[in-house]
Amino acid sequence: MAGDILVTNIGELSTPLGFQAPRGPEAMGRVATTKDAAVLVRRGKIEYAGPAAGLPAGAASGPGLVRLDAGGRAVVPGFVDSHTHFVFAGYRDDEFLWKAAGMPYMEIHKRGGGIARSVQATRAASKAELVALGASRLKTMLALGVTTVEGKSGYGLDLDTELRQLEAMRDLQGGQPVEIVPTFLGPHSIPVEYAGRPADYIDYVIAEVLPRVAESGLARFADVFCEKGVFSVEDSRRYLIAAKRLGLGVKLHADEIERLGGAGLAAELGAASADHLLKASLEDIGRMAEAGVVAGCLPLTAFTLREPYADARAMIDSGCALAIASDLNPGSCYSQSLPLAIAIAVLYLRLTMEESLTAVTLGGAASLGLADRLGSLEPGKQGDLLVLDAPSCRFLAYNAGMNLVRNVVKRGDLVFGPAS
Amino acid sequence: MAGDILVTNIGELSTPLGFQAPRGPEAMGRVATTKDAAVLVRRGKIEYAGPAAGLPAGAASGPGLVRLDAGGRAVVPGFVDSHTHFVFAGYRDDEFLWKAAGMPYMEIHKRGGGIARSVQATRAASKAELVALGASRLKTMLALGVTTVEGKSGYGLDLDTELRQLEAMRDLQGGQPVEIVPTFLGPHSIPVEYAGRPADYIDYVIAEVLPRVAESGLARFADVFCEKGVFSVEDSRRYLIAAKRLGLGVKLHADEIERLGGAGLAAELGAASADHLLKASLEDIGRMAEAGVVAGCLPLTAFTLREPYADARAMIDSGCALAIASDLNPGSCYSQSLPLAIAIAVLYLRLTMEESLTAVTLGGAASLGLADRLGSLEPGKQGDLLVLDAPSCRFLAYNAGMNLVRNVVKRGDLVFGPAS
Repeated sequence: MAGDILVTNIGELSTPLGFQAPRGPEAMGRVATTKDAAVLVRRGKIEYAGPAAGLPAGAASGPGLVRLDAGGRAVVPGFVDSHTHFVFAGYRDDEFLWKAAGMPYMEIHKRGGGIARSVQATRAASKAELVALGASRLKTMLALGVTTVEGKSGYGLDLDTELRQLEAMRDLQGGQPVEIVPTFLGPHSIPVEYAGRPADYIDYVIAEVLPRVAESGLARFADVFCEKGVFSVEDSRRYLIAAKRLGLGVKLHADEIERLGGAGLAAELGAASADHLLKASLEDIGRMAEAGVVAGCLPLTAFTLREPYADARAMIDSGCALAIASDLNPGSCYSQSLPLAIAIAVLYLRLTMEESLTAVTLGGAASLGLADRLGSLEPGKQGDLLVLDAPSCRFLAYNAGMNLVRNVVKRGDLVFGPAS
Repeated sequence: MAGDILVTNIGELSTPLGFQAPRGPEAMGRVATTKDAAVLVRRGKIEYAGPAAGLPAGAASGPGLVRLDAGGRAVVPGFVDSHTHFVFAGYRDDEFLWKAAGMPYMEIHKRGGGIARSVQATRAASKAELVALGASRLKTMLALGVTTVEGKSGYGLDLDTELRQLEAMRDLQGGQPVEIVPTFLGPHSIPVEYAGRPADYIDYVIAEVLPRVAESGLARFADVFCEKGVFSVEDSRRYLIAAKRLGLGVKLHADEIERLGGAGLAAELGAASADHLLKASLEDIGRMAEAGVVAGCLPLTAFTLREPYADARAMIDSGCALAIASDLNPGSCYSQSLPLAIAIAVLYLRLTMEESLTAVTLGGAASLGLADRLGSLEPGKQGDLLVLDAPSCRFLAYNAGMNLVRNVVKRGDLVFGPAS
């Protein structure tokens, strides 16, 4: 899984630049565009990306070198979807339609809707079932150009099922082309066993689950749903501190429904990212920028929940690095459509095309602490790229909502699309 | 191009019912859903669609009968995209981004933006170029489940180019699987040659172009952009009356930007449809319902222009048949994403899933005067159907913005997707 490939005849090569988080408007908008370009990847790493005329001598030869003619099309880095819940059982399509029709939350709850349904179905699913469901969703995401995906547990809310979700991700790693960054999200919701006792559930997670997750090496991050009626700032804080002590990076679902202060907590703890942020205060966004916390925008969730979008413009202008991700999950957002997320970013979040492209590539990588290796097409970085069926990356927004991915190259291997 | 196919193992078959326009809330929401279903098509026509147990004896045999196992998936009628401008040259992706960034119309105009650019490029394109561009867009639409598409001229604004656009559609008919319904849209904009003289241009169209279009048999409908600053109600009326006299059906772009009264004119003339309707009055919508004019909603255009959506709920409740279409065009809406249109319909137009499904199938067919032959899966209708990669048509909205089409069957021929 580390190939040699030479991509030639690239009409327009567009890539953000940088080996760290693209912080603030200058870095988020810094996209280099090269006409008549080529990219050379050897042993999975980019050796050259630039004007075709500047290709090093001898670049076109070597045993095992695959050649891909882009036919004048556009090339961009592989997408990094930095916030998903792609391993779950139990669809909630009926509930989606109830919500769309305006049914009140309590009525949906009475009919058995809500996250508890997904928890029940995921607890009942075997690991093999979770692997099969995850594999099918990864296949869909690959066709959309996702070369790296973050995946969260959080539909178990008990030791066994949380570990099973993480094990499913481990088993999927390498068996298919999409690189998986696993996140433990035990405190995603209050399980029925702890109804009304969120602090007790956090005690349990800290005492029984986190240590097992950390010693297993199954997760890179710990995440929490810090929200009114779910986990308080205080409970989130002690959980995340415990996770950090065990060597995990930390992330938060912050200030989505109410302004609780999760964004400020993310800054205080130096989290890798705080995501959602629809209600975050500008002061807390400023603190996140100072602390280097990546702001995660999930516009598909706001779209499907009919919420006002997060103020992504202010996040960038405050100096944050911004990531845009799908939030794929069975409840609030069953969509993996990064094309739609990009269209919303340009039309409704008021980002430029350059900022939007950066947010789904280098910004996503930064949100996972991987900007040194992923997210841009520069020598030394991993050879993850997309050939688009379009003359320019501008079509990602212009051809609104459409999947333009023709080819996917992961670590120098052509893993999707026609070879010529 | 008229095959025999037996589709078995359908987990859920969902179809509107009816051989005419589905008028009003009762008809628009009347979707029959059958579990464990099968569909039999012979010589392009549906012989049976219903419970697998009720398949007529001998259905599974016959020379040339293709069998398609749906694997428990959902089946719906082929989509009818009843309003597109898919034959044009000249993309305007830069202009899209200028608009998205809030650039004023006059500044865009100064930079050479606007429909005149597409007209210039289309006038400069040969018929072969237009055919190639159209073919490529039809291929994309087929993969999205579009089995019938309406296509408009209107990027020529002169006799030769308008005819060339229509000829391109004629040449594409039959050479690929998507059925094309051609519409003449000479009065799409005021050409530079007639700047400030829309009535003179209408005179020219009525005298020189319409008769040639009618005698050529290249168009089924005549359409006009009835809008303040473009073509007045009076000019639209005399153009459409002339078209009707020549035997063409009539359609209108009505009340999109200002409330000019195009919807009322559509009712007065018994148009097949009036489309856009963002600013149409409830009185005029009521008149459309009485006159049997189909209301065409184009939510992707409102989405990309950041306009408030049309009041589709009121249109249905007023007794109209509703069609939802893409409006694919190079300026205001370069998107053919019916999946996104369906998600917007359910989330933002407040339609039910049943109404949304009807609007992209039977409603679209009605908008083209073809509801007696297309738009539902009932014996006697044409065998145009989709196998979705989902257990239920509910996923068309739930899996928001995603293309779920696995197979397309057109007139009984399997024209897209794996054979098993």
